[in-house]
Amino acid sequence: LSGVTAIQPTTLISCSRLAEALGVNVILASETFQRTGSFKFRAALHLAASVPNDLIIAASSGNFGQALACACALTGKRAIIVMPATSARVKVEAVRRYGARVESVDTQLQGRAQRLGELAIQHPDAYIASAYDDPLVIAGNSSLGRELAERLPPDVDTVVVPIGGGGLAAGIIVGLEQRERMARVVGAEPLLANDASRSLRAGEIVRNDSEPPTIADGARVVSVGEHNFPILRRGLSDIVEVSEDQIAEAVRLLFVAANLKAEPTGALSLAALLTRPDVFAGKNVCCVISGGNVDPAVYVRLLEPPGSP
Amino acid sequence: LSGVTAIQPTTLISCSRLAEALGVNVILASETFQRTGSFKFRAALHLAASVPNDLIIAASSGNFGQALACACALTGKRAIIVMPATSARVKVEAVRRYGARVESVDTQLQGRAQRLGELAIQHPDAYIASAYDDPLVIAGNSSLGRELAERLPPDVDTVVVPIGGGGLAAGIIVGLEQRERMARVVGAEPLLANDASRSLRAGEIVRNDSEPPTIADGARVVSVGEHNFPILRRGLSDIVEVSEDQIAEAVRLLFVAANLKAEPTGALSLAALLTRPDVFAGKNVCCVISGGNVDPAVYVRLLEPPGSP
Repeated sequence: LSGVTAIQPTTLISCSRLAEALGVNVILASETFQRTGSFKFRAALHLAASVPNDLIIAASSGNFGQALACACALTGKRAIIVMPATSARVKVEAVRRYGARVESVDTQLQGRAQRLGELAIQHPDAYIASAYDDPLVIAGNSSLGRELAERLPPDVDTVVVPIGGGGLAAGIIVGLEQRERMARVVGAEPLLANDASRSLRAGEIVRNDSEPPTIADGARVVSVGEHNFPILRRGLSDIVEVSEDQIAEAVRLLFVAANLKAEPTGALSLAALLTRPDVFAGKNVCCVISGGNVDPAVYVRLLEPPGSP
Repeated sequence: LSGVTAIQPTTLISCSRLAEALGVNVILASETFQRTGSFKFRAALHLAASVPNDLIIAASSGNFGQALACACALTGKRAIIVMPATSARVKVEAVRRYGARVESVDTQLQGRAQRLGELAIQHPDAYIASAYDDPLVIAGNSSLGRELAERLPPDVDTVVVPIGGGGLAAGIIVGLEQRERMARVVGAEPLLANDASRSLRAGEIVRNDSEPPTIADGARVVSVGEHNFPILRRGLSDIVEVSEDQIAEAVRLLFVAANLKAEPTGALSLAALLTRPDVFAGKNVCCVISGGNVDPAVYVRLLEPPGSP
């Protein structure tokens, strides 16, 4: 199985209703139809196909765990995914369905990193994979940057990218550079988890005290990755910090005006357009929608307009 | 403006999670990202671009009205859309946004067809457009058949299509024929609105007494179109009748396993796979998802699993 053929091309969606609602020319690059429902599969498959190890271990309760489990199944490798004992059963089952082993960790008693360290000692032959801080992750995600460079209409001058650990933004920057595509890359991160923004201002990585409680669960990280930071510094022209309300509004707007189901983290880029229209006025913007996996119960709450009973 | 460039290509989605859930190889052809959110724009644009009249009048509370209003705006024509006075305000506004005139009709006092007749007399220069029974509608929808013929993987042997008035199925049959693509075309219609199925068995068009109260509002028609019927007779290999519960289950499954927001009518094709797995066993199936426009309140109810409070 070739890695290239297993990756679904990103879904470009031109939506005049959305553009009218925003007053900005916007095209969506949706990774919601990527294998396992998010861009994480790009990094996971590249990583699984690249490392010589037969066993890969990672800590993730979310999209990376599922993506890595699927990637290992496709490449004939074994995977152990460390997940909090409180993880939604549907997420645990999604990982198990691909044949991966789930190591449950009671995060009240033991940190996930600590459990990961124990497993690394038990399995010295394993590759320990970070969901966002690994050159292989950047290289895997760079395929999306190359795709955008090749497939976006030539007048698109701005690409807006959700930022959690920064692996997607770094990959897109690298991919655009590889194809010599001139486009401004703007990051979008939750105000509640604005460590990337603070880090860029400080000129060094600034860490959150704990995982921030934003609804954008893909951005609940303590800091951007060390491999990503220098790329973000040279490649990001701006970061927009968005409120939780704007994230919810962006999820609703994608539903109503674009027929697109996005997870909150995926809607960060559109939330940036809602938050700072001045940054995007007169631009031709591509919003990267990084994933679509959201629990029905969470989604139902997001669809209710604010103030409804 | 060329008609061809204004039509968005259908979005092909390969979803291994969905295939696993169904036990059938399935690819989705989603028209939910078409302009105005449904396949109806194909017919509306072709019609507006083809007729010499400067004014087009149609009765539609749903996707065709919005599509025709948009198509007339793009082709520099005027549109009058007859809508029931009880139509959701959001639907009326969607039509008005494109500059079309909305004629409200109190369906308790006067039928939509009667109001349409009055308007035809008042505007003898106007083209009266049917949402589904017009050779121009079939020709417009045939572009989807040609796209499927050209873009579906060669091993896809079965195309499942929602049936209301039959205009989409007829268009797909014609488009596949034009490209000499051999594929079985299977219709999917609500059990509550199974007039197409009964018509094919009877060998003549059988009419419902009134518009059937199915949740698939695109299939709330009194009968299939007279232009469509002979094409359905020669081109459909089967029709699967699906229950309201299976329609809701299909909407949920598209949400959970494919990250796709579909309207109930759009999910009819997937509901057919749920209803009659025997018909599709061992096949490589393309499910046409005809549209995605559904009110948030209706969608929220559909996402709640059966039996939940």
